[in-house]
Amino acid sequence: MHSLHIYQSGTGHVSGRNTDYAFEMACSNVRYGKGVTREIGMDLQNLGARNVCLMTDRNLSKLPPVTAVLDSLARHGVKYECYDSVRVEPTDYSFKAAIDFVKKRNFDAYVAVGGGSVIDTCKAANLYACHPEADFLDFVNAPVGKGKPINRSLKPLIAVPTTAGTGSETTGVAIFDFEDLKAKTGIASRSLRPTLAMVDPLHTLHMPARVAANSGFDVLCHALESYTALPYNMRSPCPTNPITRPAYQGSNPISDVWARHALCIVAKYLKRAVHNPDDVEARSSMHLASVFAGIGFGNAGVHLCHGMSYPISGNIKTHKAKGYRVDHPLVPHGLSVVLTSPAVFAFTACMCPERHLEAAEILGADVRNVKTEDAGCVLADILRNFLYDLEVEDGLSEIGYSKEDIPELVKGTIPQERVTKLSPRSHTEEDLTRLFEASMTLY
Amino acid sequence: MHSLHIYQSGTGHVSGRNTDYAFEMACSNVRYGKGVTREIGMDLQNLGARNVCLMTDRNLSKLPPVTAVLDSLARHGVKYECYDSVRVEPTDYSFKAAIDFVKKRNFDAYVAVGGGSVIDTCKAANLYACHPEADFLDFVNAPVGKGKPINRSLKPLIAVPTTAGTGSETTGVAIFDFEDLKAKTGIASRSLRPTLAMVDPLHTLHMPARVAANSGFDVLCHALESYTALPYNMRSPCPTNPITRPAYQGSNPISDVWARHALCIVAKYLKRAVHNPDDVEARSSMHLASVFAGIGFGNAGVHLCHGMSYPISGNIKTHKAKGYRVDHPLVPHGLSVVLTSPAVFAFTACMCPERHLEAAEILGADVRNVKTEDAGCVLADILRNFLYDLEVEDGLSEIGYSKEDIPELVKGTIPQERVTKLSPRSHTEEDLTRLFEASMTLY
Repeated sequence: MHSLHIYQSGTGHVSGRNTDYAFEMACSNVRYGKGVTREIGMDLQNLGARNVCLMTDRNLSKLPPVTAVLDSLARHGVKYECYDSVRVEPTDYSFKAAIDFVKKRNFDAYVAVGGGSVIDTCKAANLYACHPEADFLDFVNAPVGKGKPINRSLKPLIAVPTTAGTGSETTGVAIFDFEDLKAKTGIASRSLRPTLAMVDPLHTLHMPARVAANSGFDVLCHALESYTALPYNMRSPCPTNPITRPAYQGSNPISDVWARHALCIVAKYLKRAVHNPDDVEARSSMHLASVFAGIGFGNAGVHLCHGMSYPISGNIKTHKAKGYRVDHPLVPHGLSVVLTSPAVFAFTACMCPERHLEAAEILGADVRNVKTEDAGCVLADILRNFLYDLEVEDGLSEIGYSKEDIPELVKGTIPQERVTKLSPRSHTEEDLTRLFEASMTLY
Repeated sequence: MHSLHIYQSGTGHVSGRNTDYAFEMACSNVRYGKGVTREIGMDLQNLGARNVCLMTDRNLSKLPPVTAVLDSLARHGVKYECYDSVRVEPTDYSFKAAIDFVKKRNFDAYVAVGGGSVIDTCKAANLYACHPEADFLDFVNAPVGKGKPINRSLKPLIAVPTTAGTGSETTGVAIFDFEDLKAKTGIASRSLRPTLAMVDPLHTLHMPARVAANSGFDVLCHALESYTALPYNMRSPCPTNPITRPAYQGSNPISDVWARHALCIVAKYLKRAVHNPDDVEARSSMHLASVFAGIGFGNAGVHLCHGMSYPISGNIKTHKAKGYRVDHPLVPHGLSVVLTSPAVFAFTACMCPERHLEAAEILGADVRNVKTEDAGCVLADILRNFLYDLEVEDGLSEIGYSKEDIPELVKGTIPQERVTKLSPRSHTEEDLTRLFEASMTLY
């Protein structure tokens, strides 16, 4: 991040250099409509699919989003097998179990019905079934894995998101807990993108309130992080071959549009979507916001909130999230991300204060007469208010962490350079320590 | 358009009905960066291409956008053949000539370097080379052709736009003059979309001022028409199979974002881009605006300005556009579209006045205290001012039309129902007559 000195504070824009950097914007086809899921059998017929893998998790397998898909498959005579052992917050072991399942069968198309856990597991299964000779670590992001580029095309994958947060239905990223490292990492390549994201707003009506809140925080942070990420033409190294251009390329004029728009929807609808599960307008708006933020961060990337969230969820010992039916300790992804957000944006604001102020204003802060140097505090304050109103746990301490855990959390953040290097402000281990400390309590 | 009565004036939103309509948003991958064209040889290598068709037109064939591509192909040892006989404003005959050329060769990838004429010709050539048994009219839009769905995948096509207007680099549409009908029609299918739009802002520096102006008007109308198009859930008929969902589906929450954003850029940069060819910021902003508007209208569609433009360009007798080097009478596409825009938006405003007022405000009108019923006049006035400042011909009369030609122009608009049915306001032949009359002089 040696070129940071020319990223001028106060403008949010590059100056002083005419770079030759490029960015590439890619996203899945997105189909949106109430009840659109019932078309899926026809889509699979149109694709000529003869043996479909339907992936979901056990909680969902009896709920309307899955039964709507099953109905459509039956009505159009599409042959399928169902894999419903996806783990919520998947691990390398749960990924490998799904990969083993699909490798033994000769699937020619995939359907993933669920949140990010299901869609990510399905992406990984499709990838390794199409590369049966590959070692699991071959495609996992460096430095944890080898980060090899994927140049074989995968089978069609239709993603049907049932939460409004992940954005996984539009991105080329699959995230999992690497158990030995106690941290999340992932696989990232444009070729992982689903063929089609089938966004049916009726599905989000089945989300419990806490799932709506936590997945909404993921949208919030996708938008904030991608909007404040290092600009695409400040990234290094510049790829020598376009095939090595990463999925996460830094903020750019296209991802900016999506990030801002998603943030406006979060500001307007998230509280309503959480507090009133029957508010179809709010829930369906958040479902689209999740797609919008996905298109944004799927091309621009995220940075510190996400990078620091991976050890937060990986090291969790006893905390069981409210409103989730799981048999293992769990901090939901969106919660692990948002708890550090006030500290993170107070830290990064000096690199592009105007963008931080703009975000604060969208979230409802009065930014008239605010000095540039106070942009970080203003955004952090409005975020704390926002989280308080949504009854979010009071910082890392309330989900079971204490000061003694911070070295472990910092250690787990270091390998997340795929995302942390997109932070607009470079940082040391001491900086990370201070960010975790400041996130112990929020209010 | 029998359901129009529930499209409530004054809201721009559907009410009174819970439809099951869906929309599908699709666009090419978009890569943007100064000098990005030099990566193209590597992309073709990565695609495994062994025999590439490079399509362009004679004016461009010696200019930097083409030489940059040729350099890259040579540097990476990519074998290619060049077809530079594309006609500016192509016809069914010029499409067929290109199709004959590619059918005799076994191309495995296509590169189109040029404006909409080149990119559209290349899409058609790729389509028919992949369907050698098809009759030309098979895929042409109904009612002119048979409008058959395309369900075979085509060869990769990389589009390198050299004008800032068409948006063709992101869309699944190819437009041509059908000479016997003296009107434009086209082929529309998601499968026509280029694999990659390679947007190099340096290429637009070579555009003559009038080309910058006219292609900018195309962007302006793409944005205005797609933003005011009939909403996706008001369209009829509702497709029974998703493969028959048209490329142009009506305005929707995703295309709206693109349309508004493109309009903001046009308002800010078009005059600068025309008046100062060396203004890299303005020209590159317009290049991106063209992509944004393309993604918007490529999914939402256009309506009356475009529908009426096709007979305007098809019936031209003697007018030769300023600043274009062609050997046949020509009204540039963007000019033929924009000349009717004041009349069209004055006519459509009553169906969604808030959207028309919002557009007027973006273009610089003072809309405080404007009554809803005056939205159309306000938008028409600001459009006339905008065109006057850009030295646009004073209406259809200045490009050679008189009142006597109006029946022929109306007759040529009738078959354009693929786009005209997306008008938010239904219309009779008398309405079209009045719109052409009102467009004879502008100032």
